[in-house]
Order: sequence, then C-alpha cells, then structure tokens
Amino acid sequence: MTTQSTTARTAVRPPDAEAFAALYAQVQQFYAHQMQLLDLGECERWAATFTEDATFEVPTLPEPVTGRPALAAATGRTAAQLAASGTRHRHFIGMFDVAERPDGTVRVRSYAIVYASPIGGESQLHRVCVCDDVLVRVAGELQVAARLVARDDLA
Amino acid sequence: MTTQSTTARTAVRPPDAEAFAALYAQVQQFYAHQMQLLDLGECERWAATFTEDATFEVPTLPEPVTGRPALAAATGRTAAQLAASGTRHRHFIGMFDVAERPDGTVRVRSYAIVYASPIGGESQLHRVCVCDDVLVRVAGELQVAARLVARDDLA
Amino acid sequence: MTTQSTTARTAVRPPDAEAFAALYAQVQQFYAHQMQLLDLGECERWAATFTEDATFEVPTLPEPVTGRPALAAATGRTAAQLAASGTRHRHFIGMFDVAERPDGTVRVRSYAIVYASPIGGESQLHRVCVCDDVLVRVAGELQVAARLVARDDLA
Repeated sequence: MTTQSTTARTAVRPPDAEAFAALYAQVQQFYAHQMQLLDLGECERWAATFTEDATFEVPTLPEPVTGRPALAAATGRTAAQLAASGTRHRHFIGMFDVAERPDGTVRVRSYAIVYASPIGGESQLHRVCVCDDVLVRVAGELQVAARLVARDDLA
Repeated sequence: MTTQSTTARTAVRPPDAEAFAALYAQVQQFYAHQMQLLDLGECERWAATFTEDATFEVPTLPEPVTGRPALAAATGRTAAQLAASGTRHRHFIGMFDVAERPDGTVRVRSYAIVYASPIGGESQLHRVCVCDDVLVRVAGELQVAARLVARDDLA
Repeated sequence: MTTQSTTARTAVRPPDAEAFAALYAQVQQFYAHQMQLLDLGECERWAATFTEDATFEVPTLPEPVTGRPALAAATGRTAAQLAASGTRHRHFIGMFDVAERPDGTVRVRSYAIVYASPIGGESQLHRVCVCDDVLVRVAGELQVAARLVARDDLA
C-alpha cells in the first residue's frame, strides 16, 4: 500500500451505518426463518411471509404463482412429493445484496443453494439459484411482494 | 400489488431493531469463529466456546457428549483422523433463525453444510445438518449450553 | 446446566455491540455485492472494490496480482472462458470472522464456496476456499487492500 492511498483512507463510518445494520439483520432473519418454514413443509406459514397479492416466478413453472393460497398449494405439492420419495430439501440462502429504495421497498438479490438428501443415501447439491426479491414492510414486518428465481443450470 | 395492500404498508421499523441487529451480528460472529476453530483443529479453544457443562448431541454418537474435556477429546479424534487421511473439512454454517427468550437464553436454529476436500483430489459435499442450539451469555460472551445436530441423510 | 454455571451468566451485552453490528453488516453487504459483481462478469466494477494498489494471491497464479487493471484483466479472462464453455460460476462467501485492528484496518477470514453450472447440465461443487482479507475504509467505503485465497484441495 502506498502512502498516497493510505492518506486517502479514513476511519469514517457512514452516518446511517446503524440503520443499515438494523435492516440487514432483519433481512437475514426474515430469509432464514422463511426458508426454514419451507423446508419444514409449513406451507401456510411460509405463504404468510408473502404479501396477500405476491407474485412468484420460477423457470420451472409456466406462469407466475400469485397470492398466498396458490403459493401454499404449490409448495404443498412439492412437500408431498419429497415425503413420498423419502427426500429432504434444504434451501441455504445468503449473499444478500440489500438496497432500500425511496419508496420504502427493499430490494434483495441473493444466492440460494438447494441441497437434496435421500434418507439413507448421500446428500447432494441440487440447485444453484439467484433470487431477486422486492420486500415491503407490513406493520413493521418484512414480506415478499415479488420474487423472481433464476436457476444457473438453465439457459 | 393492489392499492389496498399498499395502504397497509408502513415504513415503521420495530423499536428494538438496533438491539436485534446487535444480537444477530454477535451470533453470526460467534458461529463463524467457532466453526473456524473446529476446522483448524483448535480443539481446546473450540471447546471453550461451550459452557463448562454443555451438552452436545449428534446422531453418530451413542450418547450426548458433556463438558469441555469430552468435547475437545471428541473433536481431537476427528481432527487426527482427517489429518491421517489427508482430508480437510469445512463447516459452513448460516441460515440463523435467532430468538432471545425471557430467561436470557438465545435459541438459534441454523443449517450447517460440511465440505470434505481430499488434498490432491476433488472437494465434495459431505453432510447437510440442522443445528439447534441454546446459547447463553457468560460475562457478555456467547457460549453454547446445549447443541443438538440432525443430519438430513439419516432417518 | 448446574446452578453454579447459571449464576455466572449475565445478560450484559458488550458496550460496543451496536458498533460491531454496524461493521459486521457493512462487511457482509460488501462481500455479497463484490462477489455478485464477479459472477456477473462486471470486471471493472469488481476491481473497483479493491484499493488502487491491492494485492491478490491465489494458489493457481504464479505470482500475486497487483492493482485494479491487472485484477480486472485476470477476471475478464476467466469470465470469457466461462462464457465460451457455457458455464456459470457462483461464489458463495460467508462465515465471516471479523476483527477491527487499532490501525483502522478490518481483518476478515471467511469461507468461499464456488459452484459451477454448465448450462443445460447439472450444478456442481467446484471449489472450497478460505479467504484472508485486509479491508480498509476509503471515504467511508470498504475496499480490499490485500487478499490471500487458499484452496482446500491443494496442499
């Protein structure tokens, strides 16, 4: 490191660092809880982490899923298939790139890795996904208003 | 998004957001440090992140391990086996669902992915685990009082 | 838990817990954004997250890369190779062990998992790495001054 670049450095922390930390922790807790609900097959409680009119787009569905009943039904089908095949899924989400917009929405781009474990078999990497979300606050709590999931293995 | 649901949204952040962020960061730092100690084979320092009388339950041991000397011994055996076989393990933990209880304990449910890398070979996914912990504060520092680990590939 | 150890416990949180949380969130956001830029092939913007005179050492390069132009060029070559082979990489970094030093630098030891997805094929675990960084603040923003990457599969 040269003297010049060292001189340019300051110990100044952005003035809104504490507010950002509060948001970032809330976002992380929200996603951890939401994905754990999904993996537990708690479909109704999982769907309740979305807004009433949320949209959910994934490449493997022909059209977006809209609203909590449809979200709960879609994940309920997946949960039933997994149970029938004796397989567990874990959605490990992280790498949160978080930005609060002037309109109060929170944009989060993250990576979600899905692991599949056949019970009595070997755990495997299942999917690598990028998740683009619009979060909103409803009575202080975060909810997903729009989710767009992309899979790395698909064009 | 309909007008109705938008109206219900507020920019209100929970009043305890900063306190939760402080706890959440401390929890994340604690786990990162603890798991790195484990992977470095620093068994005594790793064991010191548990309470004196901590209990540790994993499905591959016939009974819970209790107390720091037993914890250090158990991980020391694993470290020796890995060294003998020329393999590195990394425990990547995250997805922290954190709740502070009225009694001052902190409950954390998380996912831990274990990677195994034979030196000179190919890194592999080894285990997918769910970790249920009771953390306590001792002189301001977090320690694990009870840990229960479940493996996705086992019934 | 015995009565004795319970008595020793307090609900005291370290006085600098909020400041640490602010730093920890900033560090996490920094890494998430930086690695997403890398995976997007945004080589110039990625290089700009390093100091002007940053050093970058990885086991697969014969000597350290120094400075933003060299960093951008090196990742540009990798991005071109990936595009040519129809493969996506994702760098999932986490497990941040963060310590601020008296000189104002921030030391971060983390784990980075690299996933590779041939488009139309199956996503695979590619690399398991440990990342040792020296971060500095430049006008309040974090930048990498020095990075040392180790791969678990290499001696």
